[in-house]
Amino acid sequence: MIENPFYAPEVQGPYQLHSLGSFDLEEGGTIPDLQLAYATYGELNEAKDNAILVPTWFSGTHATWWQVYIGEGRALDPAKYFIVVVNQIGNGLSTSPHTTDDPAIAMSRFPKVRIGDDVRAQRQLAQELFGIDRWALVVGGSMGAQQVYEWAVRYPDAVQRAAPIAGTAQNTPHDFLFTQTLMDAITSDPGWNGGEYTSHTEVAAGLARHADIWAIMGLSTEFWRSGFWRGIELPDTSWDTFTEFQERFTRAVFGAMDPNALLTMGWKWQRGDVARHTGGDLAAALGRVTARTFVMPIDEDMFFPPRDCRREAELVPGAQVRVLPSIAGHFGLFGFEQTYLDAVDANLGELLASEVP
Amino acid sequence: MIENPFYAPEVQGPYQLHSLGSFDLEEGGTIPDLQLAYATYGELNEAKDNAILVPTWFSGTHATWWQVYIGEGRALDPAKYFIVVVNQIGNGLSTSPHTTDDPAIAMSRFPKVRIGDDVRAQRQLAQELFGIDRWALVVGGSMGAQQVYEWAVRYPDAVQRAAPIAGTAQNTPHDFLFTQTLMDAITSDPGWNGGEYTSHTEVAAGLARHADIWAIMGLSTEFWRSGFWRGIELPDTSWDTFTEFQERFTRAVFGAMDPNALLTMGWKWQRGDVARHTGGDLAAALGRVTARTFVMPIDEDMFFPPRDCRREAELVPGAQVRVLPSIAGHFGLFGFEQTYLDAVDANLGELLASEVP
Repeated sequence: MIENPFYAPEVQGPYQLHSLGSFDLEEGGTIPDLQLAYATYGELNEAKDNAILVPTWFSGTHATWWQVYIGEGRALDPAKYFIVVVNQIGNGLSTSPHTTDDPAIAMSRFPKVRIGDDVRAQRQLAQELFGIDRWALVVGGSMGAQQVYEWAVRYPDAVQRAAPIAGTAQNTPHDFLFTQTLMDAITSDPGWNGGEYTSHTEVAAGLARHADIWAIMGLSTEFWRSGFWRGIELPDTSWDTFTEFQERFTRAVFGAMDPNALLTMGWKWQRGDVARHTGGDLAAALGRVTARTFVMPIDEDMFFPPRDCRREAELVPGAQVRVLPSIAGHFGLFGFEQTYLDAVDANLGELLASEVP
Repeated sequence: MIENPFYAPEVQGPYQLHSLGSFDLEEGGTIPDLQLAYATYGELNEAKDNAILVPTWFSGTHATWWQVYIGEGRALDPAKYFIVVVNQIGNGLSTSPHTTDDPAIAMSRFPKVRIGDDVRAQRQLAQELFGIDRWALVVGGSMGAQQVYEWAVRYPDAVQRAAPIAGTAQNTPHDFLFTQTLMDAITSDPGWNGGEYTSHTEVAAGLARHADIWAIMGLSTEFWRSGFWRGIELPDTSWDTFTEFQERFTRAVFGAMDPNALLTMGWKWQRGDVARHTGGDLAAALGRVTARTFVMPIDEDMFFPPRDCRREAELVPGAQVRVLPSIAGHFGLFGFEQTYLDAVDANLGELLASEVP
């Protein structure tokens, strides 16, 4: 177990752990004591029909959701809804390579985890803790969108509404290769040591290269050209040039994280694919969806481009495509722009207000 | 000096070397005996008004031009024009870190070279060898486009027509950061050894990571999604999956090259900027251009997107924008598609046929 201050409640905001006990994984491994880190906002009503599930994205935690997306008067309003944000397995808060001392799964021995494992685990958590069998909405961005699709295909009756933001149901070849460059940036650092480092700081160079690839793919050509970064503020730091922004923002963000956690999520991201349920037939898989679905790509996204999301939306019965505007591209998910947040809220608000069967 | 078979005439096609003698560089260094590798196609006429100059792109040589762009009946027709393709300084054929035994500049001691150095060197070569003072056309792709713009701004009277393909006059912040990831992939390989390896194969891992970043940025999301790669053929190899294509095509291409040559070109690419002539004023610099100019971005280019090229075109007096179609994105430059080649030929043919002052 490695202490990493980035994952402390002081940084992430309050969360709780729920143990699912021994959890068998789709790829064949087992996590002997799978702990899911989750946070809830609002109250579950008696009918249990106001529950919203939010799974997290690559490198993300529940923190961005309470900081950016959840609030009174917002679409995700804790005064009306019971919102459950569940940190994905291996994200550094839920059971992850560096959070356990169990010699069977610690560090380099951590088993391979798939999107389907997360969704099954979230279902178990919701039933055990809250008796929730059905969500008014499942919403998530990026790898969170992969989980949204997996929910809607695997458990159609459990999802009344679905909002996959900036992500796909079946990972694309380009995304697979992109994710591999992110992972190779880490594993090529001698400090990674086959996954057996003793502090994430030993992998600082690899984490920096990882962050630098994010800077060119996670943000957009327009973000950099326009100097949009000048208006972004972080506590205790500042930047006068775009290279300083890269060093002090993207490198700082990813440099604080656990390398093996990023690798666990990266491997999972590469293999997200709802067509695993239908022998590779994506149309058949997405045809199972009964949720009222808004597919919400981001216009400047460099690696989940709107056209890829549109193609999938055409296979989801009744789905609508709502393109979100963000000059920040995929990292628009961080909510730098009020226009982006307004668009998210308008769409989620409309979706939540819509009648479902 | 390192022997690298990739740069042999058997692979590259015939070329000649011309020594410019001692050549002072803009960044302050000197190349004691700068040799430019060049190839010519066709005959210079008596009026010397049928000369076309082609500078090369990052990692490129003259080979792609005779293989893909030059031919009878094509726009670049050696039956009509005298076409001079000059390999950029440091590209592995012209004087480069690994081609010299001069202890002052070999390997890690190779001086920094700028786009302006290439253009001055090309001008000297053209005058010394051919007495050419004016080009009917200067055309190049990517870093070749940077040189085209540099020619048109630095020596307006020497350029009658200009065709920058898939490149910019002023490198963008996104491109700077992208190029840095390419370079860091190489320099992070312990085999690079501070630039003092004894064979490029010692840097195989770094060159592979370099190639993998090219695979996601040089090609396009649509290229990978559509499986376009299935139709691409190389001698002595084949591929059944997209990961095999990546391993056997993009890794093979870049894995054969010299690491220090790539780094020399990368540093130069990052700093291409015609506004150096006008105290940072891009509009003033491009306003100097008198060449009839077709700005030719590629529609699916991930890092020289058409909108960036359009913005610059608006600053070039009388310039027209002609967007080239290629699902391969920036690597459309390799000429995988007849539709792309036809578009290039139609535009260059129209440009060459147009009257100039």
